[in-house]
Amino acid sequence: MNVTRVSRVLSKRTLLMSSAFPRFFSVTNGNGRLESSKVLTGGSMNPFVKQIEYAVRGAIVIRASEIEKELKEGQSKPFDHVVKANIGDAHALGMKPLTFPRQVISMCVNPELLDDPRFPADAKDRARRILNGTGGFSMGAYSDSAGLEVIRKDVAKFIENRDGYPANYKDIYLTSGASEGIRSILKLLQTSVNQGKERAGVMIPIPQYPLYSASLSELNSYQINYFLDEDNSWALDTDELKRAIDAARSQCVPRALCVINPGNPTGQVLSYENIQSIIRFCKQEKLVMLADEVYQANIYAEDSKFHSFKKVLRDMGPEFEHMELISFHSTSKGFLGECGFRGGYMEVVGLDPEVRFHLNKMLTAKLCPSVVGQAMMGCLVNPPQPGEESYESFTQQKTAVLQSFKERAKLVQDTFNSVEGFHCNEVMGAMYSFPKIDMPHKAIIEAKARGLHPDSFYAMQLLEETGLCVVPGNGFGQREGTFHIRLTILPPIDALKPLFERFKAFHKKFLDKYK
Amino acid sequence: MNVTRVSRVLSKRTLLMSSAFPRFFSVTNGNGRLESSKVLTGGSMNPFVKQIEYAVRGAIVIRASEIEKELKEGQSKPFDHVVKANIGDAHALGMKPLTFPRQVISMCVNPELLDDPRFPADAKDRARRILNGTGGFSMGAYSDSAGLEVIRKDVAKFIENRDGYPANYKDIYLTSGASEGIRSILKLLQTSVNQGKERAGVMIPIPQYPLYSASLSELNSYQINYFLDEDNSWALDTDELKRAIDAARSQCVPRALCVINPGNPTGQVLSYENIQSIIRFCKQEKLVMLADEVYQANIYAEDSKFHSFKKVLRDMGPEFEHMELISFHSTSKGFLGECGFRGGYMEVVGLDPEVRFHLNKMLTAKLCPSVVGQAMMGCLVNPPQPGEESYESFTQQKTAVLQSFKERAKLVQDTFNSVEGFHCNEVMGAMYSFPKIDMPHKAIIEAKARGLHPDSFYAMQLLEETGLCVVPGNGFGQREGTFHIRLTILPPIDALKPLFERFKAFHKKFLDKYK
Repeated sequence: MNVTRVSRVLSKRTLLMSSAFPRFFSVTNGNGRLESSKVLTGGSMNPFVKQIEYAVRGAIVIRASEIEKELKEGQSKPFDHVVKANIGDAHALGMKPLTFPRQVISMCVNPELLDDPRFPADAKDRARRILNGTGGFSMGAYSDSAGLEVIRKDVAKFIENRDGYPANYKDIYLTSGASEGIRSILKLLQTSVNQGKERAGVMIPIPQYPLYSASLSELNSYQINYFLDEDNSWALDTDELKRAIDAARSQCVPRALCVINPGNPTGQVLSYENIQSIIRFCKQEKLVMLADEVYQANIYAEDSKFHSFKKVLRDMGPEFEHMELISFHSTSKGFLGECGFRGGYMEVVGLDPEVRFHLNKMLTAKLCPSVVGQAMMGCLVNPPQPGEESYESFTQQKTAVLQSFKERAKLVQDTFNSVEGFHCNEVMGAMYSFPKIDMPHKAIIEAKARGLHPDSFYAMQLLEETGLCVVPGNGFGQREGTFHIRLTILPPIDALKPLFERFKAFHKKFLDKYK
Repeated sequence: MNVTRVSRVLSKRTLLMSSAFPRFFSVTNGNGRLESSKVLTGGSMNPFVKQIEYAVRGAIVIRASEIEKELKEGQSKPFDHVVKANIGDAHALGMKPLTFPRQVISMCVNPELLDDPRFPADAKDRARRILNGTGGFSMGAYSDSAGLEVIRKDVAKFIENRDGYPANYKDIYLTSGASEGIRSILKLLQTSVNQGKERAGVMIPIPQYPLYSASLSELNSYQINYFLDEDNSWALDTDELKRAIDAARSQCVPRALCVINPGNPTGQVLSYENIQSIIRFCKQEKLVMLADEVYQANIYAEDSKFHSFKKVLRDMGPEFEHMELISFHSTSKGFLGECGFRGGYMEVVGLDPEVRFHLNKMLTAKLCPSVVGQAMMGCLVNPPQPGEESYESFTQQKTAVLQSFKERAKLVQDTFNSVEGFHCNEVMGAMYSFPKIDMPHKAIIEAKARGLHPDSFYAMQLLEETGLCVVPGNGFGQREGTFHIRLTILPPIDALKPLFERFKAFHKKFLDKYK
């Protein structure tokens, strides 16, 4: 099967559905004026921005917000609230923030609280440490563009403890979430042209987290899809990597490989040997490695373990040590779930010093990431230690969150697998299930008649009838002819159980109608 | 005089000095390995990133940080600390944060404090209002990509009160500082090609804030320089706009005009009539207007007043109402100076609905700006009102900050004008003085012999001998043959006075040597 062609066709079809501007808007503006009075129009604006897609906050999510307003206005629905299981946003779904980081940050923001006896000594210590690293003892001063040195050093120590190899704080860049770091590196990879076969090619997994496809669209770099093997627990097969890169060479200059581990939306966790073979592949094909490791703390399967790309690379010895690897982490996932703070870091190793010079310069023009977000990262990498006042309560809260995620992961996958026509691989890690739906032929026909992708058609009906908001699989990419939804495992167990009852009833009705 | 040619020559020369990679780094990496083992090199990386310049954090600022370390290590210098007057970073230079916003935000971050009797009722009210607008009553939840609706609504009200015209909260986008909004709009303006005369042209003032030139470099859009009239208090002359756009038409498709008002680095404040004529020019030439109004609260000259582009545009009536205007504001300047929080907004009016649709979609892929930064913007636009508990203390602090900036602006300009060979226009607003230096011919020769721009040469010596860190004028652009430095007015009066004594002594010595 010619998978590249399939994926191009697929991509074109998805485009029609989620990046196109709804027709009914486009003739005149609010004043009935012809659009030609505008400088920027659909015809004159940046065409690469037009081709961006981002389904995680796409049409179904917009409809979910409308339904929330309709409920507020008193409209009657078969449910009393919407569950937004479309995005990995733990706090929005009821998770309580951990106490320690919030104490630290409230003192950083309002240093008068440093004298408050209610706060524990270790939290005060962390807050002072961070404030001493700022300009004028204030979170309101700009930091260096790469972040506060004190926190970069704590990140380096965190990585050293995790991997057992040295990490240099100068290789650490604090970023606004992981996304901003990823975008910066994709930007570096772009070539002098943004069209034709000389443009940069970047390998990404399918299914993928759509930040990658959206950023590559914006840069008009070439997206090289490699498919994860759903029949084999979403494994990453290097033969497939080879197929994908060879097929892409006539379209672009392949320059980098992105890996998401643990996987989003797939939940797979790469084995040590698998990472070794990916690194060998990148060496052979001369690719920069981008390791998206934001879910590194979210491992649920008993026989899975998180191995960082940096550690495996260093284990492989001097022959591999020159390789270019950028790893990303975030405060938004793991056990903190502090998405709104926009904390993140990237560790950049092996980069040519001249490229590094220009990366640094590009970042200076962006001033700095949120200093409060940096402080949140500081709390993630420098938590209370044994013997410190908050150690027990912090550890207890952290363990409870991770244990609860683990239970939810199991509940979600088991429930899907108990439903006719659903197949869900084990959620080994991360925060999502990505079950496959055996879509009835009649439903596919009906969806196409309405101009919808079949899994969008399914997800929209699921939303309207149960209040459950999920992202259709086409937003992440999937093999032609397969259909999926992504559901976060984040709704609390108490909410998940009745939700799944509604879901099962919906699905039965759907099957009765279209089977 | 052919100014376009001059500016091209100038731009090329500046490039050689601040965006080039120092030669001594470039042969081998730390392991003595040849650079050809790298995928990304100076030759293969994104050339548009290479051409970025950003002098506000350039070579002189890097040297300033080195000197700080040398002082810490006990090296003897003619001064005991470095004064970083290179950047508008008020808190780093000793300004104390206002109390009210910090109270609000510490409660938002740590809602347990909502019960604390030490906090005033209005601060609690604001914190609850913001938290009620978040997911799960937590700053850790993602907001909508355009920001929390409650704060967007407060911004709209703030604009209505300021301008006397309606503002729609749907036109408000909260951003990570003003910079991120500016970059988003410049991104929209890009055309399908990033080279040749079909690419987008954007008019920017010279001197300019280098975020503009850096972002245009990164996009490889064409920078159309229009020169402000230094001999006429840095006035913006529409004849010069006409000259600049006509000269650029063979190089690009002009699509937008940026105005910085009050000006950075020039400190000028545009008159009402001046803004009217700029709007007429943009209508005639079919340009999108970008109004960078981050210094709108920083007005010092007795006969100056801030007029927003939005208000003037609406005053001009229906003939102009369809025009595309994007205005930017920030929490980093004004009387808050809260740079590290990265709060900002843009108001987008007149945009074609299809373009707006794609802007919204592009922003969703960036998730959201820091929710804490959004809360800081909430405090800026919804401050304590008469009758509320914090009103008096807040107003007193605000007035004191602005009054003190006003005194410093006068002190700085008067001091420069009292020094032989310095000419400083009135600092009517913003946070900077940008005096012209009559550079002695011998100093120019000497600078060129060392491969330095003459005002970089001057600024570097000033730093080494006095500890005063300023940005050389070539980082902002200036007319060929003129030389400047930019000094923020932010060092406290007590620090400015002795600093200026050292500066005067340095300058006399410099003149003695090179005159």
